[in-house]
Amino acid sequence: MRLLHTMLRVGELDRSIAFYCDVLGMKLLRRQDYPEGKFTLAFVGYQDERDGAVIELTHNWDTGRYDLGNGYGHIALEVRSEEHTSELQSLMRISYAVFFLKKQQHQNPVLT
Amino acid sequence: MRLLHTMLRVGELDRSIAFYCDVLGMKLLRRQDYPEGKFTLAFVGYQDERDGAVIELTHNWDTGRYDLGNGYGHIALEVRSEEHTSELQSLMRISYAVFFLKKQQHQNPVLT
Repeated sequence: MRLLHTMLRVGELDRSIAFYCDVLGMKLLRRQDYPEGKFTLAFVGYQDERDGAVIELTHNWDTGRYDLGNGYGHIALEVRSEEHTSELQSLMRISYAVFFLKKQQHQNPVLT
Repeated sequence: MRLLHTMLRVGELDRSIAFYCDVLGMKLLRRQDYPEGKFTLAFVGYQDERDGAVIELTHNWDTGRYDLGNGYGHIALEVRSEEHTSELQSLMRISYAVFFLKKQQHQNPVLT
């Protein structure tokens, strides 16, 4: 058995694809509209789906935003230093700033 | 770059580990308490973390349940027929029943 993908619902598919591809460096592996169900699926990842887990983005055409809840945490990526794009560096600076702010706000910082 | 894990917060860690391991057939790869931050992390998956993406379960000791929201969809697994345990077969029957009920309720079924 193996993990195929993690599916996340997104309100703005093109913006999400741009984020995962242009900032996080993934590739758009496939994208397909399902007019009957009024949704589009897009798969993004670092390698072919046969070779490892990827992200499935689901866009329901009539839903512009979602209640994110607090049960889903994050996806974690391994990044080698030579792979740092300027966009990724900016994102990492923002992430670090958010983490630092959270740490300041909580006596017991949430590290996860 | 590669996808390391998807992190989900869980209210009852032992029950969650039992679900991922006994029903879905994953292995508990590592588990560690962080008393200073009052949380425990457990990593479950089908292979070593070096070889593919896994699931990180985060249990914050003072949080028994979470608002799941509707933005997080699911994780998808590839299962070969010889890997069907009785627990997994039961789960697949339940999943199919839930899908069928959803299909009955919606004119445009959400397939994702």
